[in-house]
Amino acid sequence: MTKKTPAERAPSIPRDKTDNFTDSAIEARHDFISERTGVSVAHVAHTSQDPAQLPGNLENPIGTAQVPLGLAGPLRLNGEHAQGDFYVPLATTEGTLVASYSRGMRIISEAGGVKTTLVERYMQRAPVFHFADARTARDFGLWFKANLADIRAAAEGTTRTGKLSHVEHYTIAKMHYTRFNYTTGDAAGQNMCGKATDAACKWIMANFSDAPIRYTLSGAIDTDKKHSQLNTIHSRGARVVAEVTLPRELMMKMTRCDTRDLYRARQVSTLGGLHAGTTNNGLHAANALAAIFIATGQDAANVAESQAGLTYVELLENGDLYWSITLPSLIVATYGGGTGLATQRECLEMLDCYGAGKVGKFCEIVAGTVLAGEISLSTAVVSDEWVNSHDAHGRNRP
Amino acid sequence: MTKKTPAERAPSIPRDKTDNFTDSAIEARHDFISERTGVSVAHVAHTSQDPAQLPGNLENPIGTAQVPLGLAGPLRLNGEHAQGDFYVPLATTEGTLVASYSRGMRIISEAGGVKTTLVERYMQRAPVFHFADARTARDFGLWFKANLADIRAAAEGTTRTGKLSHVEHYTIAKMHYTRFNYTTGDAAGQNMCGKATDAACKWIMANFSDAPIRYTLSGAIDTDKKHSQLNTIHSRGARVVAEVTLPRELMMKMTRCDTRDLYRARQVSTLGGLHAGTTNNGLHAANALAAIFIATGQDAANVAESQAGLTYVELLENGDLYWSITLPSLIVATYGGGTGLATQRECLEMLDCYGAGKVGKFCEIVAGTVLAGEISLSTAVVSDEWVNSHDAHGRNRP
Amino acid sequence: MTKKTPAERAPSIPRDKTDNFTDSAIEARHDFISERTGVSVAHVAHTSQDPAQLPGNLENPIGTAQVPLGLAGPLRLNGEHAQGDFYVPLATTEGTLVASYSRGMRIISEAGGVKTTLVERYMQRAPVFHFADARTARDFGLWFKANLADIRAAAEGTTRTGKLSHVEHYTIAKMHYTRFNYTTGDAAGQNMCGKATDAACKWIMANFSDAPIRYTLSGAIDTDKKHSQLNTIHSRGARVVAEVTLPRELMMKMTRCDTRDLYRARQVSTLGGLHAGTTNNGLHAANALAAIFIATGQDAANVAESQAGLTYVELLENGDLYWSITLPSLIVATYGGGTGLATQRECLEMLDCYGAGKVGKFCEIVAGTVLAGEISLSTAVVSDEWVNSHDAHGRNRP
Amino acid sequence: MTKKTPAERAPSIPRDKTDNFTDSAIEARHDFISERTGVSVAHVAHTSQDPAQLPGNLENPIGTAQVPLGLAGPLRLNGEHAQGDFYVPLATTEGTLVASYSRGMRIISEAGGVKTTLVERYMQRAPVFHFADARTARDFGLWFKANLADIRAAAEGTTRTGKLSHVEHYTIAKMHYTRFNYTTGDAAGQNMCGKATDAACKWIMANFSDAPIRYTLSGAIDTDKKHSQLNTIHSRGARVVAEVTLPRELMMKMTRCDTRDLYRARQVSTLGGLHAGTTNNGLHAANALAAIFIATGQDAANVAESQAGLTYVELLENGDLYWSITLPSLIVATYGGGTGLATQRECLEMLDCYGAGKVGKFCEIVAGTVLAGEISLSTAVVSDEWVNSHDAHGRNRP
Repeated sequence: MTKKTPAERAPSIPRDKTDNFTDSAIEARHDFISERTGVSVAHVAHTSQDPAQLPGNLENPIGTAQVPLGLAGPLRLNGEHAQGDFYVPLATTEGTLVASYSRGMRIISEAGGVKTTLVERYMQRAPVFHFADARTARDFGLWFKANLADIRAAAEGTTRTGKLSHVEHYTIAKMHYTRFNYTTGDAAGQNMCGKATDAACKWIMANFSDAPIRYTLSGAIDTDKKHSQLNTIHSRGARVVAEVTLPRELMMKMTRCDTRDLYRARQVSTLGGLHAGTTNNGLHAANALAAIFIATGQDAANVAESQAGLTYVELLENGDLYWSITLPSLIVATYGGGTGLATQRECLEMLDCYGAGKVGKFCEIVAGTVLAGEISLSTAVVSDEWVNSHDAHGRNRP
Repeated sequence: MTKKTPAERAPSIPRDKTDNFTDSAIEARHDFISERTGVSVAHVAHTSQDPAQLPGNLENPIGTAQVPLGLAGPLRLNGEHAQGDFYVPLATTEGTLVASYSRGMRIISEAGGVKTTLVERYMQRAPVFHFADARTARDFGLWFKANLADIRAAAEGTTRTGKLSHVEHYTIAKMHYTRFNYTTGDAAGQNMCGKATDAACKWIMANFSDAPIRYTLSGAIDTDKKHSQLNTIHSRGARVVAEVTLPRELMMKMTRCDTRDLYRARQVSTLGGLHAGTTNNGLHAANALAAIFIATGQDAANVAESQAGLTYVELLENGDLYWSITLPSLIVATYGGGTGLATQRECLEMLDCYGAGKVGKFCEIVAGTVLAGEISLSTAVVSDEWVNSHDAHGRNRP
Repeated sequence: MTKKTPAERAPSIPRDKTDNFTDSAIEARHDFISERTGVSVAHVAHTSQDPAQLPGNLENPIGTAQVPLGLAGPLRLNGEHAQGDFYVPLATTEGTLVASYSRGMRIISEAGGVKTTLVERYMQRAPVFHFADARTARDFGLWFKANLADIRAAAEGTTRTGKLSHVEHYTIAKMHYTRFNYTTGDAAGQNMCGKATDAACKWIMANFSDAPIRYTLSGAIDTDKKHSQLNTIHSRGARVVAEVTLPRELMMKMTRCDTRDLYRARQVSTLGGLHAGTTNNGLHAANALAAIFIATGQDAANVAESQAGLTYVELLENGDLYWSITLPSLIVATYGGGTGLATQRECLEMLDCYGAGKVGKFCEIVAGTVLAGEISLSTAVVSDEWVNSHDAHGRNRP
Repeated sequence: MTKKTPAERAPSIPRDKTDNFTDSAIEARHDFISERTGVSVAHVAHTSQDPAQLPGNLENPIGTAQVPLGLAGPLRLNGEHAQGDFYVPLATTEGTLVASYSRGMRIISEAGGVKTTLVERYMQRAPVFHFADARTARDFGLWFKANLADIRAAAEGTTRTGKLSHVEHYTIAKMHYTRFNYTTGDAAGQNMCGKATDAACKWIMANFSDAPIRYTLSGAIDTDKKHSQLNTIHSRGARVVAEVTLPRELMMKMTRCDTRDLYRARQVSTLGGLHAGTTNNGLHAANALAAIFIATGQDAANVAESQAGLTYVELLENGDLYWSITLPSLIVATYGGGTGLATQRECLEMLDCYGAGKVGKFCEIVAGTVLAGEISLSTAVVSDEWVNSHDAHGRNRP
């Protein structure tokens, strides 16, 4: 922090005219920080990440944030893409997180493993088209549908990987909101979708001549870097389900929790969630997501969307507990973005999830990890429940 | 990944019986990873973070995730706690993020700086009490209010820093949901609140004798590690507002955007957000939050709550644009958690935000950074808008 | 309907300068309707409602809408205010509605009756105060709290019945939103609250001199004539819970439904509701509400708020089914509004709910009726479930 | 009300074994009411509605609720289906409602009339299919899509009018939720859709043999008799937009409101609505809806769904105010249900909206009426705003 000097501008961060990623450019910024703030960045400067690899991932590099990395597992997965036992790297500074997830993974593994199902996976971009009135907006929607083949061709002409699967249509006021859904291979695909959709919009601008038209590349219903109910309903990224049936005896032995109490806690939390207007009637999916995202080079800001979840449990007649979580908006990649950086790639490789053809597997591992954390935290909460001595053991205990 | 061996358990992660944070314990895990997955973790192992500092932050350490760190700024802040020009460290792998935030910061600074206001700051824990019927639940609420002083004493007896400010009460079905709100000093305070509230619950168990009672420490309306409308309404963590008025001429010069178009884009996005059921009618607060959280040792999972935002803009009669964002649930700390780790502390120190008495300042810097990103991305979207040539320049353009 | 005559204005509806409620004024409008639309309003004109009683309830009277009225019951209530067996008048045109509610009432009555609990009851008005920046808005909130006694006095000076219980405070952007909560006796109290709050606002305008200030009497968070999550959380009108435990044998005998299937249907519907972002995880509270509201002279538009509900069920170990619905925003009156009109008063009197001191009782009857309908419809849906013959009777049937 | 007699059942409501709609059956119930509650139902008994017409609309008839009926208008409509000046019957007991809507209609008419656009109109039924795991649920969705033609045939075989337009698909946990969308002619169509969908489900049960399967006819995402964000997004019933541009001079003259203040009030209310989590960022659509629904024999419980709204306004450069409301879930009919009853039919006929081929017109009239009320109430609120004398007239007034 520098003293406020209202009459003059604060100095700009040093930049090198030809290559901002050289050691000398980075050092110039270290000097700048030291001079402006008095802080030495010895730890920040300590990195094995080759700065030459960073263009496209970062600007104004000054080093790296070192986030402690722990290992959780084994997690047994009975997925379609992920099968076997996995050890999951988690980057976090929250004590007990790795231990808690490991504990949940052991429980799940003892129960025979988690079944994971990738339902679908698309990435979105949602341009809005502006007109003089609602009637024109509505009719534009019809025109759009009639011209979908050409619009698709325009979009897909910008990418080798992305395919335009389908487009959602919503007329509101005098605007027509659309939401383009693409398959994006193993990349998360936000940029790919943006580029393709922009090309589609430009084709539309050139070919729609019925009425004046303007567009904005995002009408906010993508919904990007924030949650929306629309994301829960129609997904953003992957929709993945993780399921396990927890035997009553096993739970009693491993967690000293009665499955009946675990079940009841879910019911009461769902009710609380309905009251609060929650985005997730489970416990803390965001903990797993943030830790895996940081470890594996995902966009950690996508925790905003990916945190959404729908938990469904059943207490079976024999006392066993079926537990599932549906993640409707899980945004991950095994290719592109930060996945190829030094530690990030190593972490993906630990899961055999680096590169092309791995994203389904990775989605399943993430979902399985989330479920492990749900179960683990829930047993911690429930085992800490206390019953008032007064009449507590009667049949009709509350 | 290892082959699935259904008949046998996968091996456990090596642990040292006396100290899991020694080099030898860490190396044992490196060998384990190498053996199980064939992956060498050379980069993960490369760290300047002293593992002896990690207990309380991590379990099963194997090294660090190196997240690229860039510097954005200068950002001029006219806060109550933060005043002057700041250079903000951002940890990310998303290309253009640092550049975009820097651009927004320049715009804001040229406009005279961002005004930031910390409205309030509490941390929550939300136990639910179970009864035989709704009437008892309701009456328990009255009993609770009548005994608040004792309940507060029980809670505050567990902490030197935390103070129980107020408790929300909600009767639903036969449960009584409460939500304890604490001031927590410079810590985020989730654990402090959990411990204090548990003590309060135990006091209640011991002293409420009107009827059978059970409790669960969280009835899900905290709302922890996920968003809820309740968090937006009553906040979780800090409620902070960042405001700036952008001169029309300045925006035209710096961004080639007409403030009228920027304004309209906000209106259309808000409408889209209402349609989608969004948690944030702004653009991408989560980008700033995730990058700062990772850099400064915050709990990155709290992006789930902190992403919520309420954007309000006004187009003034002179064409200038008032722009504000209210972050209702910003969860940050300058003390405890990961704030004292190697690179994390350096990053907080760059902002003069490490340690006690700094959290208000840090809240303001975060909010100012978020606002910079909103403006920057919006100008990028709007400058890319295209107008159909057909009758586009008429007065009544859509 | 008349032909469009763009160049000229359509004629105004005839009004009598001295008394619009005379027979002649009404007949003039009948003639007008006949002339303009060719429709004879013989049925509309057929009414026993004395038009002289209508001022304050209606303008431009032309007669009455005759809504078919049926009787449902008996409904046994074990409330605090309502105790005994009730026959509930329902105004509706939806076939099976009365029969279905009657059926639910019989089930509930056989099960021993419904327990109802009025948790709280307030009416709201929510002025918003505008300032130059967020800081002033926040500080105004502190000033408001410090001056609450005077503000309350100003508000309560306008009404004999209404008492200002408490005020909610929310700073957003540069506005300070408040939500005044009043007790309103047996009236719904919207107008009473509006008038009292306006007086409070005027007191504030006259006494707050720290900064320029404007206000709007409603900042939309009342939330009036529409649902909001805030209404669910903090209630609007009454918060009432209705509970019953349905014996397994009884349900099997009366409905041929297994309580286990009824229970499961609730779980699956709650999950669907979370996915859809519903305001009510029950079935169709609005049916009871609309029918009772029309019959008893409530404001039928308040179905918008009152429809919200939180259903919580438990399958007890013995197979009995605990079923509750919490109505967080039930807006009703037994005094004022349309409660004193001809048929409306008769319908309230059938329930011994006309006039002062009856609103608690009426709230309970409404909630009990809603619950009866939930159970009845649910049994209809569940008994219509069909199981595929293929492997349907195995233990692990889905 | 009768005294509680726990040991015995309360008597059943008298029913006639052959015809419950005869005068004698109705009189028997009058006697019953009088005997049980001491209430004479002279007004309730006063009706011109032929009870013989009621079967299918009501059970246990005891007479009619007489709801005061007023006339509002003229409302000028420039719709596709509704063109010209309309006088709208409103059934209500809320004083000022008719006057306020009339006032809004005059404003709109003076401004040239309201432009209305029916975007789409479908009715829904949403069966959920239960499986052993998520994978089967997902695969069932694929099977469903592959067999859509047969499923459609099964559904459409039950109705002459209804056509199955499209089906939404959502896999959550181990269930597959679907949402069937039908065109329903001039009927609201809930029953028609239920019957058709049930036939479709039975076809599915008979033909899906890949795995065990159960279904429930409603998985709650229809969303019937309550609001959901899904209804806003995908509509339930009709999606209609009403738009008008209000000249600044006209508004000043007719309402003494500056369009700038009206505009600002909308912005501030939208912000409040986002904070509160509202279903409608407008003012009070439910008032118009309830009053028209009661008058014209609609299902008044559908106010629960129909109340949702998206308001979008623009302050044009010349100071004129564009105002629109989009009703995403307007459920109305001109055929079937209560539309043919005595006063209900007269009210529809006043609008030339009775019977086949009229529903589009009726949708537009309803939407136009809603908009009139929005504008009228808004001017009332805004004209009541007061500005503190202290520095109120400066340029930077808040």
